[in-house]
Amino acid sequence: MNRSQHPALIGLDWGTSSLRAYLLGGNGTLIDRRAEGWGIQHLPEGGYAAAFRGVAGEWLDRWPGLPVLAAGMVGSRNGWREVPYVECPADPASIASGLVAFDSGCGTIHLVPGLMQGGPLPDVMRGEEMQIVGVLAMQPALAERSLLVLPGTHCKWAVVERDRVVRFTTYLTGELFAMLRDHSIIGRPAKEMGVTAAGLEFDHEAFTRGVKSAHESGAVGIAPWLFTARSLFLTGVLAAPQTLDYLSGLLIGEEIRSVVAGLADAVCPSIALLGDPTLCNRYRLALSQFGIDDVQALNETGPLGLWRIGEAAGLVAHAPDTMQEDESRGST
Amino acid sequence: MNRSQHPALIGLDWGTSSLRAYLLGGNGTLIDRRAEGWGIQHLPEGGYAAAFRGVAGEWLDRWPGLPVLAAGMVGSRNGWREVPYVECPADPASIASGLVAFDSGCGTIHLVPGLMQGGPLPDVMRGEEMQIVGVLAMQPALAERSLLVLPGTHCKWAVVERDRVVRFTTYLTGELFAMLRDHSIIGRPAKEMGVTAAGLEFDHEAFTRGVKSAHESGAVGIAPWLFTARSLFLTGVLAAPQTLDYLSGLLIGEEIRSVVAGLADAVCPSIALLGDPTLCNRYRLALSQFGIDDVQALNETGPLGLWRIGEAAGLVAHAPDTMQEDESRGST
Repeated sequence: MNRSQHPALIGLDWGTSSLRAYLLGGNGTLIDRRAEGWGIQHLPEGGYAAAFRGVAGEWLDRWPGLPVLAAGMVGSRNGWREVPYVECPADPASIASGLVAFDSGCGTIHLVPGLMQGGPLPDVMRGEEMQIVGVLAMQPALAERSLLVLPGTHCKWAVVERDRVVRFTTYLTGELFAMLRDHSIIGRPAKEMGVTAAGLEFDHEAFTRGVKSAHESGAVGIAPWLFTARSLFLTGVLAAPQTLDYLSGLLIGEEIRSVVAGLADAVCPSIALLGDPTLCNRYRLALSQFGIDDVQALNETGPLGLWRIGEAAGLVAHAPDTMQEDESRGST
Repeated sequence: MNRSQHPALIGLDWGTSSLRAYLLGGNGTLIDRRAEGWGIQHLPEGGYAAAFRGVAGEWLDRWPGLPVLAAGMVGSRNGWREVPYVECPADPASIASGLVAFDSGCGTIHLVPGLMQGGPLPDVMRGEEMQIVGVLAMQPALAERSLLVLPGTHCKWAVVERDRVVRFTTYLTGELFAMLRDHSIIGRPAKEMGVTAAGLEFDHEAFTRGVKSAHESGAVGIAPWLFTARSLFLTGVLAAPQTLDYLSGLLIGEEIRSVVAGLADAVCPSIALLGDPTLCNRYRLALSQFGIDDVQALNETGPLGLWRIGEAAGLVAHAPDTMQEDESRGST
């Protein structure tokens, strides 16, 4: 944080379960931050307006007229105001052109659109685009060509080429894991022992065993392996707590197996993992089982992404050192 | 039913959610039947013994000393008495040699063991072996070489060769469907419309679309397709009720895709579907999308399977016309 800078933008990362606010200075430098559990499904009394005033009111009182950008589920059908998706391929300029400004009652808020792709494998994202744009702004090599992976309940894999999100795919891996743990016969042994995800120490061997099964399954995939998360327990090979990390390995392994199969014989681009470091570490371990080691982990790229979208929209001024980057981008 | 025959065996199909009792005469002819909702997780007051007397007491009073065979979860760790699994490859004789007899307080009951396979893909079944043995007894061609498919919460695929279950695989397809419908973001639109599985008319087009996606996914599998059960709804391609049949098609399609990939270039054996006709019909439709049409559906093969196991155990006498079949089997 750098409180000596002059604030130029308030950025909001407003998802389903939390609300994060960033006070940004020139070049997207982080000056101050707030976080509350006021996701769009957990709003405080007074709703969206109260939540907004709660995280950003003090900043707005002190620096009236600061532009405000908000990304995430706040712009969804069930959010504060719906923002139409922007089509892929998408870049910071096309995302900026899809901003929707509205009067919040406490100043204008510019809502960032999510991304959509049509075609036979339609898909949508809301919020992740801000993290992706942050990577484009900070890592020119990744902006040129990369696979960006955002693990979570719904893991997104975005194909980036020449500073654009060309296409992306959502994998239900996180949700499948939680469902199988909480609602299926597979999760029962761990549940009966009172093992919860929170209290569980990572079992590297069980996780790796799951990833390996997925890897070695080849074109068959993990369909015939899922039940082994139970049968390996019944046959005494896995202890109850290990079944969960084994299952996690199977599911993350299947996700990677599927992506690798989709590459066919093409060379896998550089991969960057964005988000929760613990979860990113599972993906990094699993990728290495597939022989993929050109992987870096990046954390909190969202604030810079919001800044970059604000720049593209003309809400904040280009700083000299980002202007040069923009000119080179313009020539591609 | 043929009440003119003399009863020779009482067979019980005693699973998690129901208890079915069969009164069988020579050659396994069905003389009478009872069914109650007294699965091992839904026992009446008085427990196992009361349930047993409830379905079979009248028969035992009238024909004292009838042998009783029971298969299914009643022989599991959480059942009336645990019966160790029998290893694959398994045939009626090896299953019969694993019977466990115990005094139920209302006469001796012989519990049928489930099957287990070891190796890298360990698996277990309890109850399905009785249906499979029934097929072996009634269909010599399928007993010689076939793939027997038993759809359900945990769908089993059993490889049969020369009257033996060589190996089998459990697929979680039914449980995955129920979980995704009831507990995931995918099931939400249908749930919000109040659509339940029971009230839903089968949408052939949506189901086929799901199967096709799985089929055409090749080695990639359905990992990147699962989320389309939501995105095709968000983009207006599928209506809320259709998302469930599309999901069903994706999941059953993935199961078949995986099996076919495992066959590599080998010719697919004849397939028989056992069990609930409605569910079997979904599998038949899906198999035909994969170009597999050598498929027949068989229903209620369990009673004959119990009879055949009783024969192999010497609990009932061989009838002349089954003896011949047994002799030919002995020569292989």
